[in-house]
Amino acid sequence: MLKDVANIVRGLSADAVERANSGHPGLPLGCAEIGAVLFGEYLNYFPEEPDWINRDRLILSAGHGSMLLYSFLHLTGYDVSLNDLKEFRQVDSKTPGHPEYGDTPGVEATTGPLGQGFSNAVGMALSEKILAEKFNRDSLNIIDHYTYTILGDGCMMEGVTSEAASLAGHLGLEKLIAIYDDNKISIGGGTEIAFTESVADRFKAYNWQVIEDIDGHDVGQIRRAIKEGKANQEQPTLIVARTHIGYGAPTKQDTADVHGAPLGKEDLIGMKKFLGLPVEEEFYISPEVTDYFEELKLTKKMKYEEWKELYNTWSLKYPSLKNELNQFLSGNTPEEALELLENYPLDSNGKVATRKSSGEVLNRLSEVMPNLIGGSADLSPSTKTYLNNYGEIQKQQFNGRNIRFGVREHAMAGVANGISLYGGLRPFVSTFLVFSDYMRPSIRMAAIMKQPVIFIFTHDSIYVGEDGPTHEPVEHLESLRLIPNLKVLRPGDTEEVVKTWIEALENQEGPTALILSRQGVPLIEDKKDIDKFTKGGYVVAEDLEEKVTLMATGSEVSLAMEVRRALKEKGISSRLVSVPDRKTFEEQPEKYREEVLGDPSRLRVLIEAGVKSGWYRFLGEKDLMITMETYGASGPGSEVGKKFGFEAEVIMKSILEKLGGIKNGI
Amino acid sequence: MLKDVANIVRGLSADAVERANSGHPGLPLGCAEIGAVLFGEYLNYFPEEPDWINRDRLILSAGHGSMLLYSFLHLTGYDVSLNDLKEFRQVDSKTPGHPEYGDTPGVEATTGPLGQGFSNAVGMALSEKILAEKFNRDSLNIIDHYTYTILGDGCMMEGVTSEAASLAGHLGLEKLIAIYDDNKISIGGGTEIAFTESVADRFKAYNWQVIEDIDGHDVGQIRRAIKEGKANQEQPTLIVARTHIGYGAPTKQDTADVHGAPLGKEDLIGMKKFLGLPVEEEFYISPEVTDYFEELKLTKKMKYEEWKELYNTWSLKYPSLKNELNQFLSGNTPEEALELLENYPLDSNGKVATRKSSGEVLNRLSEVMPNLIGGSADLSPSTKTYLNNYGEIQKQQFNGRNIRFGVREHAMAGVANGISLYGGLRPFVSTFLVFSDYMRPSIRMAAIMKQPVIFIFTHDSIYVGEDGPTHEPVEHLESLRLIPNLKVLRPGDTEEVVKTWIEALENQEGPTALILSRQGVPLIEDKKDIDKFTKGGYVVAEDLEEKVTLMATGSEVSLAMEVRRALKEKGISSRLVSVPDRKTFEEQPEKYREEVLGDPSRLRVLIEAGVKSGWYRFLGEKDLMITMETYGASGPGSEVGKKFGFEAEVIMKSILEKLGGIKNGI
Repeated sequence: MLKDVANIVRGLSADAVERANSGHPGLPLGCAEIGAVLFGEYLNYFPEEPDWINRDRLILSAGHGSMLLYSFLHLTGYDVSLNDLKEFRQVDSKTPGHPEYGDTPGVEATTGPLGQGFSNAVGMALSEKILAEKFNRDSLNIIDHYTYTILGDGCMMEGVTSEAASLAGHLGLEKLIAIYDDNKISIGGGTEIAFTESVADRFKAYNWQVIEDIDGHDVGQIRRAIKEGKANQEQPTLIVARTHIGYGAPTKQDTADVHGAPLGKEDLIGMKKFLGLPVEEEFYISPEVTDYFEELKLTKKMKYEEWKELYNTWSLKYPSLKNELNQFLSGNTPEEALELLENYPLDSNGKVATRKSSGEVLNRLSEVMPNLIGGSADLSPSTKTYLNNYGEIQKQQFNGRNIRFGVREHAMAGVANGISLYGGLRPFVSTFLVFSDYMRPSIRMAAIMKQPVIFIFTHDSIYVGEDGPTHEPVEHLESLRLIPNLKVLRPGDTEEVVKTWIEALENQEGPTALILSRQGVPLIEDKKDIDKFTKGGYVVAEDLEEKVTLMATGSEVSLAMEVRRALKEKGISSRLVSVPDRKTFEEQPEKYREEVLGDPSRLRVLIEAGVKSGWYRFLGEKDLMITMETYGASGPGSEVGKKFGFEAEVIMKSILEKLGGIKNGI
Repeated sequence: MLKDVANIVRGLSADAVERANSGHPGLPLGCAEIGAVLFGEYLNYFPEEPDWINRDRLILSAGHGSMLLYSFLHLTGYDVSLNDLKEFRQVDSKTPGHPEYGDTPGVEATTGPLGQGFSNAVGMALSEKILAEKFNRDSLNIIDHYTYTILGDGCMMEGVTSEAASLAGHLGLEKLIAIYDDNKISIGGGTEIAFTESVADRFKAYNWQVIEDIDGHDVGQIRRAIKEGKANQEQPTLIVARTHIGYGAPTKQDTADVHGAPLGKEDLIGMKKFLGLPVEEEFYISPEVTDYFEELKLTKKMKYEEWKELYNTWSLKYPSLKNELNQFLSGNTPEEALELLENYPLDSNGKVATRKSSGEVLNRLSEVMPNLIGGSADLSPSTKTYLNNYGEIQKQQFNGRNIRFGVREHAMAGVANGISLYGGLRPFVSTFLVFSDYMRPSIRMAAIMKQPVIFIFTHDSIYVGEDGPTHEPVEHLESLRLIPNLKVLRPGDTEEVVKTWIEALENQEGPTALILSRQGVPLIEDKKDIDKFTKGGYVVAEDLEEKVTLMATGSEVSLAMEVRRALKEKGISSRLVSVPDRKTFEEQPEKYREEVLGDPSRLRVLIEAGVKSGWYRFLGEKDLMITMETYGASGPGSEVGKKFGFEAEVIMKSILEKLGGIKNGI
């Protein structure tokens, strides 16, 4: 029967690609049996409740093979109709070219950029362990399921997959089962042209169980391999399934041509004949297969109901755990957390790096937000993100809250996305701002998928100092601001750090990036409009007869304050505006923006130790921009700052010159 | 003796870090014997000619251990004085925190961001094979040397290292010898907290020779391991050297504390005592070690002179090869190449995707630029970068010119940087624009190191269409523009593509990114000021009594042309400006910019299928920006374009509205 199911899926997939005249038939045809065994025999799911917390997760990391997934979602009763399949790759359809989280019930993650889905799967498998550890009691295992992922050679070649796989092996995520669609074909031709490593040996080196030489078209072999994967209590499992890409297409099977283009009429007909499908009918589903899935729905429902019963027993026995799980799953920030932040004590003694303030806030939050977990890419002593009162997450020890990601920034972000997608936990991750580049593809995915991951980036400017240009972000702050749906905040002192954390926690519709300093900054007291912080930019200090508006972000706010004082000594009044979140400030009504910045004819001065490109909305050629347009330098932070003109005295003089010029009409 | 050398290097390194009160003593102390064996016995180099083409290359991928390198550069006679060592990590010194290419003779690459140096080394080892294949004749092997690289566990955890190692194994780069400083300590603590894979097995899976269990402090063992590495004619070699981080520091050896902070007085003294160094003296070099290096200089010089003799014989025997090698090494673009481009035939029939025009240009260039080599990350059929008349580079086949990078974007860029650093070859690499994110850290390194790598990015906007948001770049064009010293060009038709290639070839002082369309665009004939293309922005078409200036880039230039026609039909005159290189346009004198754009009070309209953030320099709130501020969608390209308002009719109407508003003073 599963063989018949596979062939029906081949027909549906090839027809959909043909109709769209665009798409990737190669994988669906090659992995149809794998899909049939998974959906038919192994996966627990309940299409009436796609968000059921204890469903098995299946991530198609090789997202271009989306029709495989859509075909099964249709057959198993998810809200994906035959018409939806016919709308494959059309604008606003439920069946976009690659699986898009939120567009299609049953799609667990947006996949397509290779390696992303795999690292999401690692995050989900990790979440399962953490939540199982926290919530299961006695034998009432309300969280107890597997995470499956299908990946091709493209995913296998990506570095992010290597990082995530190494981490999964380290953590012993034994309920993760990855199936490698080993079809020996890449876009450029046979994989022998570029990819001759032993994937199996590599994964063994990562401490995975590897089940090799599985015939991906032999239902029995696939079944036994998955069974073996589930039986392993120590290691994640990789199943290397040898498949034929474009299986059944007479002239195209086993060629690169079938990867990403429709079969064409001839091969489509040829395939249907070969598989015993009616040649004339498009989107054909045999009565037997229909019946099979009708029955399967009942089986799946029964499984779900068994779980429901278990859950009910559990929730009666452990009502407070139940409440906590509900709180976790709601995604809401607990009231206590917001109260804590709203009443946060500020200390005006000395200078404190914003990374340090943030670390303290994070640690306090951890006490009232038990679902806040995260870690760093081997930089927690520097990023200050270690939760001191909680242990570590390690193999067979999932009751900790600190994840040691290792020097694997990219996988860190991909795994965090998976944790967030899973539900229940609120992940944060951290590294130096300059290394945000290493994780940028996954940050983008968080933003596309609207996942509230908190990205903490410290060492945010040339003030990094001695480590030099490679470690000094210059373009990164601005380049993060460009990512749609990513909130970017750069607080200037402890008070703004606290406000930033409120913003981060309240932002449930996308990721937030916190941009924090390495070096100490003073607390700026009595900020005039601090209550307007959420507008992204606000007046910190104003004066009568202002001649200048100073704008700054992050650690440059206190420098701007010094500039303001220096100007004052010269008899020049100025206003100081902090813009911790420029994107949000840009979304404010023009009226508010102009109120904050003052009349546009007035001299505006921007101080930000990053590229200026995005600031021209608020400043023009007449204005003054103290920014970084080149790479930094290696030296003590303050020296480097001076080298590039970030010095109150120097800036003050430039302003006086400008004012002279402006006065003189130059 | 080498043991003494090692200890002197420990003293120098620890003193320099102590004096700077900043830096990483852990690696220099741990790898001092490895350095001593390399510099003393294996590396061929000639400090009087640091750019000697046949020197062995040594890349310290773990760049934070820079003092190891600086110490040896000083001792071996490079232009790095004791005073330079004392200036470690000071502004404008020759000894910055991390090795910076160009700052210090003998430094082969800027390293620090982990994994970058390793992939550079792979590129260098590949260059050696390619150039040896091309230029060596008979037994006159004028290119015949090894590439060494030292990496730590941080490098080993990074995905880019995995990608590059897999590629090196695939290509059988047997003259690459990597030494893994396996000290079991990472910043967060012992590597067992995050990194428990078997690195040795992993590299075996990549088809490397792995020499395990080497005592990194035993000169004899290191010597034999390197010898074994050199003996292998089939595979690159990884030497796993077990070392003690911070070797000799009494309380800090083998701890995370010694990785990135000065030893402190007590441990510094303790170390010196333990090593038998004078405690009171800073930057001590014993007379014996001085003598040793004096003698070593003679040996190295002799080796160099032997080569010189070989080279002279070769150059007399093969004068045309000699000329070609000189041409290669000059880095200059051959006259024929520029002539070809200046007289390039343009065909105005039909629409041609700029990726396609570019592919044709590239293929023609390949005929006159024999040092132009490159490839794609498994997308050459799509990026059109395959050099059709030349073969492939594969294991034991280095006479090709097409490199199959596999789906390894990050390593592709890192390897290209290495090829460029090596000298002689002009590398290009390609993938989809959206995947520029995957290689961003290496693009930045190319820019920092001023390497003229050509990055070809196709599928440059939402017109990618069916593949959907994950494959549609929106923020990428602008985010590349933010990288200092990266030239970014987005041509709008075949003529601009040709001009773009001239710019790319002429840009010797940094990398260039070509941003190309997937979809066809018409040739725009008779562009008024096309001769001003190099200014970054120029007038394509103008009119009398213009009411509007239309600005566009890339595939939107032809759309803007349509808008212009539609406006004309409504009786509105407009000017069309193409801005293929906005950064260069911004560098033009204000006068030129205003001449091109017309009076600022006139309505300006920008059409670019990307985020608008960087365009406010030229447009204000009164103007019209047809851009992409959200993610794209899956559907046929033209449908997606329409969905987001990229349609001449719609834009024309918005302009009319704006003009009405402007007229009415709104």
